[in-house]
Parts: sequence; structure tokens; C-alpha cells
Amino acid sequence: MATKPYEPNMVLVNEVFDVVGTRPIRPDGADKVTGRALYGADFNIAGLLHGKILRSPHAHARIKSIDTSKAEALAGVSAVVTAKDLPNTKGGVIVEVGEGNTALKYLRDNILAGEKVLYTGHAVAAVAASSPHIAEEAAALIDIQYEVLDHVLTAPESMKDGAPLLHEDLKTKELGETTDKTSNLASHFRHSKGELEKGFDEAEVVVEREFNTVTVHQGYIEPQPATALWNEDGRLHIWCSTQGSFVVRDSCAKILDIPVSQIRVVPMEIGGGFGGKIDVYLEPVAALLSKKTAHPVKLVMSRADVFQGTGPTSGCCVKVKIGAKKDGTITAAQAYLAFEAGAYPGSPVGAAGMSVFAAYDVDNVVVDGYDVVVNKPKTAAYRAPGAPNAAFAVEQVVDELAGELGIDPIDLRLMNASKEGTRRADGPVFPRIGCVEVLEAMKDHPHYSAPLDGPNQGRGVSVGFWFNIGFASTCNISVNDDGTINLVEGSVDIGGTRASGSMQAAEVLGIAMEDVRPTVADTDSVGYTALTAGSRTTFATGWAAYEAAQDIKRQMIERAAKIWDVDVESVELEKGEFKSKTDSELCMSFKELASKLSTTGGPIVGRAAVNPKGAGGSFAGNIVDVEVDPETGKTKILRFTAVQDVGKAVHPSYVEGQMQGGSVQGIGWALNEEYFMDEEGGMTNTSLLDYRMPTSLDLPMIDTVIVEVANPGHPYGVRGVGEANIIPPLPAIANAIHSATGLRMQRLPMNPGAIMEAIWKEGK
Amino acid sequence: MATKPYEPNMVLVNEVFDVVGTRPIRPDGADKVTGRALYGADFNIAGLLHGKILRSPHAHARIKSIDTSKAEALAGVSAVVTAKDLPNTKGGVIVEVGEGNTALKYLRDNILAGEKVLYTGHAVAAVAASSPHIAEEAAALIDIQYEVLDHVLTAPESMKDGAPLLHEDLKTKELGETTDKTSNLASHFRHSKGELEKGFDEAEVVVEREFNTVTVHQGYIEPQPATALWNEDGRLHIWCSTQGSFVVRDSCAKILDIPVSQIRVVPMEIGGGFGGKIDVYLEPVAALLSKKTAHPVKLVMSRADVFQGTGPTSGCCVKVKIGAKKDGTITAAQAYLAFEAGAYPGSPVGAAGMSVFAAYDVDNVVVDGYDVVVNKPKTAAYRAPGAPNAAFAVEQVVDELAGELGIDPIDLRLMNASKEGTRRADGPVFPRIGCVEVLEAMKDHPHYSAPLDGPNQGRGVSVGFWFNIGFASTCNISVNDDGTINLVEGSVDIGGTRASGSMQAAEVLGIAMEDVRPTVADTDSVGYTALTAGSRTTFATGWAAYEAAQDIKRQMIERAAKIWDVDVESVELEKGEFKSKTDSELCMSFKELASKLSTTGGPIVGRAAVNPKGAGGSFAGNIVDVEVDPETGKTKILRFTAVQDVGKAVHPSYVEGQMQGGSVQGIGWALNEEYFMDEEGGMTNTSLLDYRMPTSLDLPMIDTVIVEVANPGHPYGVRGVGEANIIPPLPAIANAIHSATGLRMQRLPMNPGAIMEAIWKEGK
Repeated sequence: MATKPYEPNMVLVNEVFDVVGTRPIRPDGADKVTGRALYGADFNIAGLLHGKILRSPHAHARIKSIDTSKAEALAGVSAVVTAKDLPNTKGGVIVEVGEGNTALKYLRDNILAGEKVLYTGHAVAAVAASSPHIAEEAAALIDIQYEVLDHVLTAPESMKDGAPLLHEDLKTKELGETTDKTSNLASHFRHSKGELEKGFDEAEVVVEREFNTVTVHQGYIEPQPATALWNEDGRLHIWCSTQGSFVVRDSCAKILDIPVSQIRVVPMEIGGGFGGKIDVYLEPVAALLSKKTAHPVKLVMSRADVFQGTGPTSGCCVKVKIGAKKDGTITAAQAYLAFEAGAYPGSPVGAAGMSVFAAYDVDNVVVDGYDVVVNKPKTAAYRAPGAPNAAFAVEQVVDELAGELGIDPIDLRLMNASKEGTRRADGPVFPRIGCVEVLEAMKDHPHYSAPLDGPNQGRGVSVGFWFNIGFASTCNISVNDDGTINLVEGSVDIGGTRASGSMQAAEVLGIAMEDVRPTVADTDSVGYTALTAGSRTTFATGWAAYEAAQDIKRQMIERAAKIWDVDVESVELEKGEFKSKTDSELCMSFKELASKLSTTGGPIVGRAAVNPKGAGGSFAGNIVDVEVDPETGKTKILRFTAVQDVGKAVHPSYVEGQMQGGSVQGIGWALNEEYFMDEEGGMTNTSLLDYRMPTSLDLPMIDTVIVEVANPGHPYGVRGVGEANIIPPLPAIANAIHSATGLRMQRLPMNPGAIMEAIWKEGK
Repeated sequence: MATKPYEPNMVLVNEVFDVVGTRPIRPDGADKVTGRALYGADFNIAGLLHGKILRSPHAHARIKSIDTSKAEALAGVSAVVTAKDLPNTKGGVIVEVGEGNTALKYLRDNILAGEKVLYTGHAVAAVAASSPHIAEEAAALIDIQYEVLDHVLTAPESMKDGAPLLHEDLKTKELGETTDKTSNLASHFRHSKGELEKGFDEAEVVVEREFNTVTVHQGYIEPQPATALWNEDGRLHIWCSTQGSFVVRDSCAKILDIPVSQIRVVPMEIGGGFGGKIDVYLEPVAALLSKKTAHPVKLVMSRADVFQGTGPTSGCCVKVKIGAKKDGTITAAQAYLAFEAGAYPGSPVGAAGMSVFAAYDVDNVVVDGYDVVVNKPKTAAYRAPGAPNAAFAVEQVVDELAGELGIDPIDLRLMNASKEGTRRADGPVFPRIGCVEVLEAMKDHPHYSAPLDGPNQGRGVSVGFWFNIGFASTCNISVNDDGTINLVEGSVDIGGTRASGSMQAAEVLGIAMEDVRPTVADTDSVGYTALTAGSRTTFATGWAAYEAAQDIKRQMIERAAKIWDVDVESVELEKGEFKSKTDSELCMSFKELASKLSTTGGPIVGRAAVNPKGAGGSFAGNIVDVEVDPETGKTKILRFTAVQDVGKAVHPSYVEGQMQGGSVQGIGWALNEEYFMDEEGGMTNTSLLDYRMPTSLDLPMIDTVIVEVANPGHPYGVRGVGEANIIPPLPAIANAIHSATGLRMQRLPMNPGAIMEAIWKEGK
């Protein structure tokens, strides 16, 4: 798949470069395929102790007492920690540390529960012992007395009057203002544009539907690991698997109440994150255990820990109403988004609210968003957080509208597509974007005109939008005297960003990517760099690599001018050759000049820090063919085409991989994945045998079409590519199921049981 | 000792700074005192194999055959390597790879012997096995047939006609020209100035003496370790104990014939080097074993390996003749320096030739230097290489001259002392130096006027000069939002340079040293940085830290100006406060501004590369009182005062430590240390029980006097401090013995046996 030839005919609006846009072998490839790459769980250090976390068996309960004495007495046990070992606790209860620090209190409380446990799997205590087995045995000896409370698991239930209250100090924020109301509704926001009622009055067709989705997990292959050493000099060293070493540094500094510079985070290789490895879970606990034992302590999650103790993404209830004229003009759109935050405020409803109608240029819009706490793990980011849930609703309503209007669903989207200058309901005006180009590429694709060739088959389409973030990245570069460069970056490499950053630096200097040696450094050894998430890394860290290479280029030009004894202004670097603009005799390759540095003034090093606001939004679209077995309800994906505007595909193979990966995660979310909860609020399917993710046997080849509408806000036009691709699969598959069966699926997952129920209900 | 109050009255010509010149706790202290610091032998990695090197039992022999079959057949053995595994070998013999590459051939030949073994301990073969014990057993099973040849161990013997010839391809270089003569004399140089004969004609007193010294070792506490992993992607990773990670990279690239960028060297903590950990020994062998086994391979030397297989410093024969007028004016000086290079060319005779008369402003000088190969390990650098040997001769002759002239020995030196403008015989003209200031500090010191209080006691003085080198260093700095900075450097920290570099960066930014987090990075993660040696690190890497901090300062000032919306030129940084020069309301501490970076444009990172020519020479002097037991010949050091011009003592405690350490090594060299060779050319005292280094019981407190004559070639006037202090102890102790006994000791070591022999010979 990775070696499939790249089709430059799909490049719409971008330049062709020498290195950017090619498909070199990744620098970290050998280590990863030979098993040499060191992941968090591989990390061992002299004197290492092993930890185990004891988790709540209840979805909601008050902690009456914790007796750790039996655990502490077990031979081989070095320490037990509970919430009272966290800073700012009073009698074992975490207290606020000042005005507006409820968030910090919640952050600490999610690390080790204070007064109450708020979800099954909530960490309550942890043990450090000489072996993982003793630690596990000791954890089982901790005696916790609970007063079990009623629990609530969905946003609609949780918002009802009389619902069990999770937090006595949670005051609802209403349209930006904190109210006196204590409830499970953390906040309600509204975006509006135009006059909604007038818009619906103008409409000739209106479709309104409600959709519900359940909790799903990112499903990264590597469970969280963390080792901490709280050293005698007060410095805390952390080795972990994270999407952001500086995020871990910042979070642990807050949770543990120590300055950031007292912490050094070493990001080990990461086995997937998809947003789920941004928040910290184990790191502060390992740190507390290390502080208490004066030994390094390692914690590694089981898969059940991962499902129950880390953040999945929200289940939600979304209602969408869209009105259009008969000619297809959408006149009004309204969305109600109630998202589960999990046990503490902070669902992705904000992003859902900003993205829900982003693909459409509609004059009259109202979006209401509700962030609701429930007795489930605090949600975390998951690939385009919130947008797939919202798109599952909107794109089905648009599909239904197209059906009622008798307009081709791609044409209807094209007629109403957002473009440069379109203002979103949440305020921003789009710069140059590729929504139209993605839709046109879908329409032009052979897949869209290919006939379906059997009964119970159907075809669906949809589009999705994601922002792609900016934020800070830094890089350092040094020149080796063999004409290569070393690139030091702070971005954890999940999807090939060692390569994509190296390629952008190589492009500037006119050298090959193979002449760049990238290193992902720890937080002591490189400048502040934001997380690897939000599709930002190739965009922002690549940009930092570009700027650091420019710093090198400037100094190399100065050196060439010094060697030739000419004006700096008269020297240029073109395709790896330093040249005099006036004297054609004066010419030297990058490699030649690199070999002369030590004798002409010494080494050259470069640095850059960038801090872009955003990476330029990305649109993705799918064409999906399915066949639904009317006897079993099983949906088979027959053909799948993923189209995405990536601005510039720095390494097209990795772009295709991202598009395929996002599509597959979307397929799993659409058809099978779910937290299956029992009546006590516990998850019953906490293994990958029972939590059903797609395997290669469930999937056709995912065809990809890279669209390149250059992002004017990046030197090479990069937009970022990791997220938008997970948005369209959910509604595209739902629309395909509708096309195959006539059923409008309003709940996820659309698994065989759900399909059969719908068939029986509709009598089809 | 380290907390002894610093006496600022000894600061002669330098400024007082806020951080530079203070005595903060070292950043690496906790790790080192608690045993957490990881040294090369502590490094372990999954799949590690253990290696053992088989060494020659003969001082000089032709290798007739090597049969590795029995070793390879031993269970647990993965590979055996010999010279034929090195690049550019032909039939097991290392060949030259092109014009002028004899040096490279010799470099490879010293790693694993080709045609001949040239010293007892010369590495011949190496084994990788599953345990160090199996490796050792296997090494013993390698069957090597030798044809033993005559050997030669000293320079005078080796230069004789008919001496056994070490190299058939070694052509003598005579005054810079390669001759046709094949001999053990690698080269002869001459420095001259004025008219020597005329000078001696003008002299009224002439003293001429011959001195001989034997091989001594640096005696670092940590034997060499090295682990190598030659990865499947062709990259070679090396973890070792070295004074220069980039030196290891460069050396291994040459020896193994691969580009430097294919190698990553991770410098582990180092347990002493003193010059002996610059050359590579184990690293290329571990690399070859790793290549052959596809596993990481670790080699660790025993103490006997260290003595026999690494580079000690030269034994030598030095003849010195000095003439003076009765008024004390030295009119002529001549030196003959014949230095043992060990088995391959490259003794420190060059440095000896440049430094021998450096303390004296003499009009008529001739210095002849001879670099001579002998059947002993190839010499390596050892603290001011060559200078102590030369000073042992010159400073005794000056002492004798003072006696004959009836002039106080310090006065005689002051009358003839080098100063700014003095031209050395080898060419250079001194910039501002502190020779006079050091001599005056000695003369003014209470020690010099204190009476001796017993029989058989004597007092000696002497001075020594060392260059202190420059070379390339790079640093990166990033600013943390808690107002601290991270400093990344390429210099291995032997003597506290994490602290001394951090202090120079802190000084620029007006923050405390404790607010700097220094990291010594691997060769992938920082720009090219020369070795930690030549007293250069605090000078050059400190300077790079200074410049990187200036880069930070510039950008922080820009940011402050941006925040205040004022001109950049109107903002300054003074003692950690950013201020407007015109508006006193505008003021912000470094910490405040650091905390605002993320919201005002993003992170700030800085970088610098420096490449100074030299660090400004350093002079050191000693006053030593001894008591010589006429019954046993044992010399007891009663009192020892070390004076040194250091330019600026960045961290006075470490400066004092260097002065004390150099003094102690000088005392050991003077009184006890030696390679005791048997008739077969083997060393008989290869343990630290038999190789007698001073212990604390042998020593008085070493008093230190720091003299600060600012080096105009460094921002804080630093000169470097690690080496000059080892030069004066040898002759000062000899002069003290002469003062106590009337004996003029012309051989090292001046151990009880030598003293007794001299007593018997002189009949005293």
C-alpha cells in the first residue's frame, strides 16, 4: 500500500518540490520493524519497582475509608499512595487551590479519587512493590469501604432534574456565564448566524432527526506505560508513552505542584494515541510512588485499565434540523449537541459545535452545545474530537434532504459548499479551503459512477471538516562535516513525522531526506513543543524544521561568501548548490561546504521556534458501497474511497496511511465499536476480543485520493492530515445502509443487532 | 575543602560578576553522590552480548597465524574478530588507503594488530559471547602463533643504529621533510631564536644536565567501557566513556570507513580521563563484533587492560643547558627532548618543545625534539602532555643556576619571566599572561617565608606553562515558562563543566545558576563540539553558553519590546530585569517575561557555535616543603602550595579542585608512579596495588592560590585551569629534595630506592 505510486494528477493547487512530495524510507523504520525501538514498557532502570493501581468497582460511590495496612505489610511492598499523597489535600480530600482552580482539583481527582469514585475503573490507590505480581496482590489487599450511589450514564439522563449529582461544586456555565445552578450540565453554549426562523420559513423542505452515539475508545495498540524517578535533587524524571512530552511536563507540574523545570519527560516510542495519549493518568501516580520509595517506579496498564481508566470519546445525543428550497439552497440549519464529558467537564462538544455545519455555507444557523458529566471515564481527545458524532447526524440529514429534493447528494453539497470567505456560525471566516475540490474529486471519481452489482447493496457519501491546529514547535539543526544534518525536534513521532519534518528541512537545503538524521529529544534537550495531535506535527514542527534550515542556509551562505571573499548578498543556495550570482566559477555543493566548516570558522548550528495559529482546515469525503445481509443484519463494506484535501502531501505514503487509518477507525466506530455497559455502570467488554475493532478481514482496500489545495499559511502549503478522514465514514456508511435497505440508522454502532432491530421495527 | 571561603584578595586583574565566581551546588551532584549517574559499564540493552579482547603476551612479535576455530566452537560464543575484519585489509594485513594515510593504517593497527604486535597488551582478537566469562574463556582458546622479535623500550635505545625496527614503512621526518630513512625516529623538529652560541658566550654561569623519566599512566578510576550496536539500518550507536563524543564519532568513522553521520555516540558519565579517554580502543572492536552478530556488544577493560592496552604518557630523555650572567640574566637556553611515542608515532614532544622555556624571556634558544617509537603502548594525552617531563628538567636547571648565582630562585625566575610581548622560540608572541603575577603571588605567600623546622627538610619552587586550547563548541538554550532555561551542550562533563557552562549562561541573563538545567547530549542531538581536554571546556563551551544566552537575550528583548509596543533599541536587560531605557514604568523580570512567552508569540530558543583559537596560556607555580628520611629514602610532602593564573575562576571550588588534583597527580608522578618493565618488555605492576598512586594518607592539604589575570580573549576572562597545575610539582619536589639532601635527582620516580641509590652514590 505504502509503495503504491502517487498520482500527481490529483495535485490541484500546489507546487512540485524536490523532496517534499516524494516517498523516501522512514528514518525510524529499521528500529520499528526489527523490534529495537524502545517503547515505554521496555524501559528498565536499576532499582526499578513495579506499581499497580487499584480501581473502583463502582460507577458512583462515596469512599468511606481506605485501609492500606494489609497491603503495606505484604513482603515486597514498598509504598501505597492514595489521593492524600497529592498536593493540596485536606483529610484525604483534594481541595481547590484558589479562585478558578476547580479544573485543577478535577485533574488531581481523576488521578486518584478523593471523596468519591465517579466511574467504574476510577483510580483509588496504588502500590509499589518489587514485582508486578506482588503489587497486584497488594492492591487486592487494600480495603476500601464504599457507600454506593446512584449513577447516570448518558447526557440526556444526566441532564434530567433529579438525576444523581456527580459534583456538588459544579456550577453550570450558561452562554459563558457561571450560574448558581448545581447540576451535571457543565456548560451550554450557542453559536448563531442570521435569523433561524426566517431561514426555516424560506425552506420548502425541512428534515429533522435525532441521533445517539455511545462511548468508543481510540483503541491504540499500546497500553499506557509510565516510569518515574523522583530524584534526590528534587528533579522528577518521567519515561512514558505520550503524544506530548511537554504536555506531560506541564500536567505533572500542575498536578504535583512543582515547577515545570523540575520535571524531565523522556518520550519513548509510542504505539498509537489518536488523542488518547495527551492526558496523563499513570505519570503522577508513578511520581508519588517514586517520591515515597526513593526508587524509580514503573506502571503499565492492562487493556481493561485502558478501557476503564483512560479517556474514550463521548457518547452523545445530537438533533439536527435543516431546511432547503426546492432548488437545493439550504436556508437554515439547527443543531442540538449534548455530549457526555465523562466524570469531569470537558467533552469535545465545543469542536463539534464549531465543525457541525462547517462544510455548508448557510445564512441562518443556530447551534446549541451541552457539556454533560456522567459516571463514565473522563473523555479524552479522539481524532477530530466531536466532529464524527456531529457529522453522523448532519450528513445523514443532508442525505435525506437530497433524497427528498431529488438532487444528487454530492451536487446538493456542492451547491451549498463552504468556500473562501464563508463565515462559520461560530465566527471565523474561511481562508482558502478545499471543500469544493474534495466534492468535485468525489464526483469525478470512477467509484461514484460505477454501477452497484447486487441486491441489498447501497452507496453513501458524506463530507467532514476538521480545523487542524497550530501551536508552538521548535527545532535545532546542526551540520555534520559529511554533508548531512542532525535535526532535533520535540514532537513525538506517531505517524512518520521524523520523516516529514526531515523532508521539509532537506527541501530548504537542497539535500536528500536520507541526509537528515532526526532525533526526538526529551524536554530538557529541546525547546517547548506542543503535542503531536490536531494534525499539527507535519504542519508546525515541519515548519520549525523549515525555519531552522533557513537559519542554517543563512549561515552557510555567509560562510561561502567568507570563503570566496565576496558579498553575502551575491551568494545563493539553489538545489543544494551554493553559487555566486555574478561569478559562475564560484560554486560549491552543500556537502563540499559542510566539509569545510571546521577549517573556515567552525561548526554551524541553527534553531527555530514557530507558533502558528492554525494549520488551515481540511475537508475529507467518502464514497462507500455496502451490502447488508437482511438475514443477519451484517454490513459488509464492498468499496471505500477516501478523498481529502491535505494542502500538500509531504510524504504521500504516510498521507495515504493516515487516510486509510482514519477511514478504518470510522468504519469500526460506525459498525461495531461500543462500551457495552451493564446495569451497575460497568463496562462488560474490556478486552479487544469483546470490543470489536475492524481487522483486515473486515475491510476492502481503502482507496485514497489526495487533493492538494495549498494552505497559504505554510511554506509548502501543508494543512495537516491526521483527523478529517475519520469524520465522513460514520454518516457515509449510514447513508449507504439507507441506500441498501431504506433504513435511516439513528444510533451507533450500526451492528447486526441494531440493523435487525431496525428491520423488524420498520417491517422491511 | 570545596567549601573553604574563596579569597577575593587573590583576584588580580578581573571583574566581579553575579554568578561567575560564586560556588553553587553542581547540577549533577545528586546523581553522582547517590550512585544514580550512569557510567559506561552500567549501560545495558536488550540482547546484549559481552566481549573480551585477547592481547599480545609479547612486546614485539610477528603474527604467524591466528586460529579462532576453537573459540568459535565454544557454546555461547557469537563471533570472533581480528584485524582482517577492519576495512582496507589484505590477507589480514591492514593496508594504507591512499597517499599519506599511514596514520590511518597505524590507527587501525592499534585497534587490532595486523602483521605484528608492537607491545605487550596490543589487542589481537576479540570475542563476543553470551557472558563475559564465556568471552574470556573463548579468548583463551584463540590460538596465535608468534615469531618473537627483539624489542626496545626507551627513546635513546630505540634511536640507536641497529635497534629493532618497529615499522618497516616509518620514514623519519627531519625538520618537516619526510626523508628516505627508515628508523624508529618518527620525526625531529627544531625551534630556534637568536644566536645560541653567542648567548652561551655571554653567559658567566652555565648549567647542563640530563634527565630521564619513565612511562606513567593517567590512572583514571574508571576503566574504559564501550557498547556498540550496529543497527540494521546501517547506523552505528556507541555508548562509551569518553572525553569527546564527537572525537569518538570522527575516529570510528575513519577506522571503520563509514560517514560520521552513520554514527551516534552517547557519552555516558565519565570516571576520569586526564587525556587518556580521547583515543578510541574498544569502540571500533565492539562495533565490528556488533556488525558480525547483529547484537549490541559491550566491552569493559580490566585495570591490567587499561595499563597495557591504553595510552599512558611518554617516558623521555631530556637534556637542558642554560647560561646566565652573574646578575641573573639568562642569555641562552638549549633543550634536547627525546620522547617515547609508544608503538606508533605521536608523543607529546611537540607540546614539550613549545612549552619547555615558555616561562622565560630568553633571547637565544634552541630546542630539538625527537618523536621515537618504542615497544610500549601508543602514548596518549595526559594533563598538559609533555610539559611536566620538560619542566622536570628545565626547572631543576634553573634551580641549580639560582644556587650557583646566589639569587633567590623566585627572584631569578621573576628577572627572566615571560610577559605580554615575549616571543617564544616556536614563534608565537604572548598576549597578556600571568607569569609574573603567579611568581609574585608565590613570593608573597606566607609559605615562602615560613621557616623549615627540622633536619632533612627542604623547600623547592618551580613554575610551569600550559597553552589551553580553543576549538569548536556549540550550545542550545530554550526558555521554560517558569523562568528557567535548559542548556544543551556537547561537552562531556568531567570536572564540573555542567556548572561552569550554566553559570556563564546565567550571568548573561541575570538568573541564578540553579535556574539553568544543563544536559550533555549525544552526537545526534547537539552541534559539533570538540573534546573535553586542553583545559578548554569552561573556556570554549562556556563561551558557547554565553553566546547562546546572548541569542536568548536578544529575542527576549524583542519580545519585551513587542509586549510594551516600544522600540527594541529602547529595551535592555540588566541583572535579570528587562527595562525600558526611557520609561521607568516598563520593567519585567526574566521570570515574568518567560511566563508570558507562550501567549505573546511562542517559545524562544537560542543557539551558538564558537571556534576560538586558544584559551590564553596559564602559568602555575608550586612551593613545596619535603622531609627526606635518610634511612629509608622516603620523601614526605610536608607542605604544598599551588598557585595558578586561571584568568577567571568561574566556580572557584572546582578551580581549587583542579589545582589540587593536578598537584596530587604531579606528586605521584614525581615520587612513585612508573611502568615497571621486565626483561621481556612486559609491565609487572598492572594493578593499583602495585602501581603506586598517592592516597590521602600520603598528602598534606594542598593549599591553593587562585590568580586571576583576565584573558582578553574570553567574555569573562577565562583561561582554563585543568592542566598547568600538574607541571610544577615534579621539579618543585626535586628542588625540595635537593634543598633537603643536596641530591640532584635526574630520574623519575624519585622513590625511596632511587633516593637511597643517590645517597649511596654521592656518599651523602
